[in-house]
Amino acid sequence: MKKEKKIKPSKDLPLGFTDRQEEELLIRDSIISNIKEVMVKYGFKYLETPSFEYSDSIGKFLPDKERPDEGVFSFKDGSQWLSLRYDLTAPLARYVAKNYREITKPFKRYQLGKVWRNEKPGPGRFREFLQFDADYIGTRNPLADAELLVLISEILEKCGLEKKDYIIKISNRKLIDGVLDEVLKVKTINQKKIILRALDKINRLGWQEVQKLLGKGRKDSSGDFTEGAGLDEFQIKALKGWMDLDLKNQKNIEETKKIKDSPENLAKSSDIKLWREGYSEIIEVLRILDFFEQKNWELDPTIVRGLDYYTSLVFEVELLFEVKNTKSEAFKIGSIGGGGRYDDLVKRFDDSLDCPATGISIGLDRLIYAIIQKQSEKLDKQNPIVVCNFDQKDMPEYVGMVRILRMSNFSAEIYPGNGALKAQMKYADKRKAPAVIFYGPDEKKVGKINIKNLKSGKEILIKIEDLPNEIKKLI
Amino acid sequence: MKKEKKIKPSKDLPLGFTDRQEEELLIRDSIISNIKEVMVKYGFKYLETPSFEYSDSIGKFLPDKERPDEGVFSFKDGSQWLSLRYDLTAPLARYVAKNYREITKPFKRYQLGKVWRNEKPGPGRFREFLQFDADYIGTRNPLADAELLVLISEILEKCGLEKKDYIIKISNRKLIDGVLDEVLKVKTINQKKIILRALDKINRLGWQEVQKLLGKGRKDSSGDFTEGAGLDEFQIKALKGWMDLDLKNQKNIEETKKIKDSPENLAKSSDIKLWREGYSEIIEVLRILDFFEQKNWELDPTIVRGLDYYTSLVFEVELLFEVKNTKSEAFKIGSIGGGGRYDDLVKRFDDSLDCPATGISIGLDRLIYAIIQKQSEKLDKQNPIVVCNFDQKDMPEYVGMVRILRMSNFSAEIYPGNGALKAQMKYADKRKAPAVIFYGPDEKKVGKINIKNLKSGKEILIKIEDLPNEIKKLI
Repeated sequence: MKKEKKIKPSKDLPLGFTDRQEEELLIRDSIISNIKEVMVKYGFKYLETPSFEYSDSIGKFLPDKERPDEGVFSFKDGSQWLSLRYDLTAPLARYVAKNYREITKPFKRYQLGKVWRNEKPGPGRFREFLQFDADYIGTRNPLADAELLVLISEILEKCGLEKKDYIIKISNRKLIDGVLDEVLKVKTINQKKIILRALDKINRLGWQEVQKLLGKGRKDSSGDFTEGAGLDEFQIKALKGWMDLDLKNQKNIEETKKIKDSPENLAKSSDIKLWREGYSEIIEVLRILDFFEQKNWELDPTIVRGLDYYTSLVFEVELLFEVKNTKSEAFKIGSIGGGGRYDDLVKRFDDSLDCPATGISIGLDRLIYAIIQKQSEKLDKQNPIVVCNFDQKDMPEYVGMVRILRMSNFSAEIYPGNGALKAQMKYADKRKAPAVIFYGPDEKKVGKINIKNLKSGKEILIKIEDLPNEIKKLI
Repeated sequence: MKKEKKIKPSKDLPLGFTDRQEEELLIRDSIISNIKEVMVKYGFKYLETPSFEYSDSIGKFLPDKERPDEGVFSFKDGSQWLSLRYDLTAPLARYVAKNYREITKPFKRYQLGKVWRNEKPGPGRFREFLQFDADYIGTRNPLADAELLVLISEILEKCGLEKKDYIIKISNRKLIDGVLDEVLKVKTINQKKIILRALDKINRLGWQEVQKLLGKGRKDSSGDFTEGAGLDEFQIKALKGWMDLDLKNQKNIEETKKIKDSPENLAKSSDIKLWREGYSEIIEVLRILDFFEQKNWELDPTIVRGLDYYTSLVFEVELLFEVKNTKSEAFKIGSIGGGGRYDDLVKRFDDSLDCPATGISIGLDRLIYAIIQKQSEKLDKQNPIVVCNFDQKDMPEYVGMVRILRMSNFSAEIYPGNGALKAQMKYADKRKAPAVIFYGPDEKKVGKINIKNLKSGKEILIKIEDLPNEIKKLI
């Protein structure tokens, strides 16, 4: 008779998802606690919106639309569609519209939480991210924009980074909008969106590939074709010229002002009305940054931010140090997030709500990865002292020992299985236990317990009531 | 000309989801930090599996199948189905199967995270929950089961509950399995599942309604009909008789043993082989609980736990104090979670993995709600000191003040909008600011700043460099 084999479920994870281990989670906890401390100091309120929203509430602002459902995980619920949030900004706009009358404005809130993007899975491309957002709602004051840059600097430095480890790159959507509207005469909103998304990829793909996306389109390494923006050669060159404007590497307002006033460099841009408006908004923010002595920024007109809802100031936070990948190759983490003004997002829900807003979004997974790679010494982790189990009948004594240890705030456990002593020692070793405790036949005879430091190998025979003191001395 | 009106997106949240406010989130943080502390003391490892799993990996173990996709949120991903996890146990089994060779066994891990159930939405019925799980994998030692009850007691008491505030109700699946197999001669696995799910609802629906679910079926208040288990009247009566067995309210092992040996009470059950086996497993666990001086339990044969994967010991954690609902009516929170043994769950992936396991799952949202309702005094929350903005030109001085305050670890902010002083005072009031700071024309003249305690109304005029000291005195 043939034996029927039942098909077993997969032990694997779907592409784009991962299990996270203790080392990473402990660093994450410490970063989150730094964030919360800074948020309280800056007067932000703590809020949490749920994972799901009505699909139409959070809209379609995603940079990439490679997937059939436009990059989000959506779900039919009765007659309506729900989506998992793809960021924390769109749900915040919904929250503000819903509670507009009750909330104290200006409204400053922060949130920490997972977001999901149903992007094309590939090696190292995740579909679930942990994000931190801080936003000012209901204010046009450039103080708000400036403080976003100040608070993220304080958070990064609290996490152990130095000024040389990061930079904030600043631009304004109005700069590129001015060029597209007034110089290149780009006509449709759709074409503009494709151009912005292409420019957003300069860092990742390089100008050569972005050029294709600005023109007829681009075939990626997997063979998939992305439709281009359809600019002609002259337009692409003009755009390139504008991007090369030497606005980069300006370290203080004086230099920036010099450039602003230099006709050689800026003749073409300063004639553009929108460009001038965007530029003076930047100067306003830089002025306030200066009062905070926050000098870790540079202007970069290639910064556009992929999401469609930004309206003026935009910025990106970049890490500058090198880390190693799994193949021990050095690479730069680059952008860990950014943000900007999105003055019209709340209005989507109700034209009567004039609610300017500005915010920052940081991808914590990349920040955590960078910090783990950078730290030479690891976080201090408490591993359990293991009480060996010689005989289930002596459980009362074993329990007594772990209770005493835990009450003295040690991590301690009775070997939780039923194995032989050899297996127990192997277990203690793998768990990196600082010590093991024996209460076997020999110890029982003399009414004492034996504690052994697994690092030094040193053993001592003590009375049970001396356990907390003796263990402190031993480990 | 008629003006076209664009349809606006909904400001509402989908049913079963909610926004969470600061007060709740701060209590949640403090509970989570208590949990983490206890977990370290007990030697558990911190792990995080992702929100998504392959649908077949986490299987169909949910108690309710009212929704077409069996209670989970599922998404088609290419040719495969993904699901959002409905608990943290099924993903743990997948993790263990995937990493069986590498993990140190017995494996003790804890996890905190959201889970989702696509249940029928209704008032107060959520579809997103925050859960805490702790599990022992790879051990049959009853020490593991006992410690689950000890650690949850320690966590609850660390969160401010007293012994009289909670109880852990214990049973064993083998008790009911014995009755169903050997007495009622229930034939199909499916019928058994329906019976267990019905019994799991005794606390929520009462026996009258559960009886319908055991028989022909039940129509709920919305008019929806749930198919019953199809037991006949005699079978239902026999089951009821067995549930009434006076196992409840036994406060120590001696009494429990007495009952076990009393033929008047247990004649019918002690003849059942599986029942006897399950009962002695319970006694083993109670014996170890006794060594831990954990006496906050009672036996309750009506405890079956809804999820299909439990194999022997099961328990539920119940809160006993009354809280008030939004209508100020007193009610008991009841169960906040539970757990038990699921010795066969890892084997689903690979018959060669003999991996007994036991764990606890706590629904944190209900626990948080209960603790918020119970606490008379609220958590100490730091509200920001507000520096009023008289003139954008004085931003350098305003920035100087918040920097000094923040460096001294005060929560402080410059009024982030552009409003008049009246609006700013209203804002400070709503934010419950402990103090406001004025640096207006009058103060500028004398080169000082004015700080005002908003509670007492007291104002003082001071030099800016005295700010940290003077504010400490004032508030």
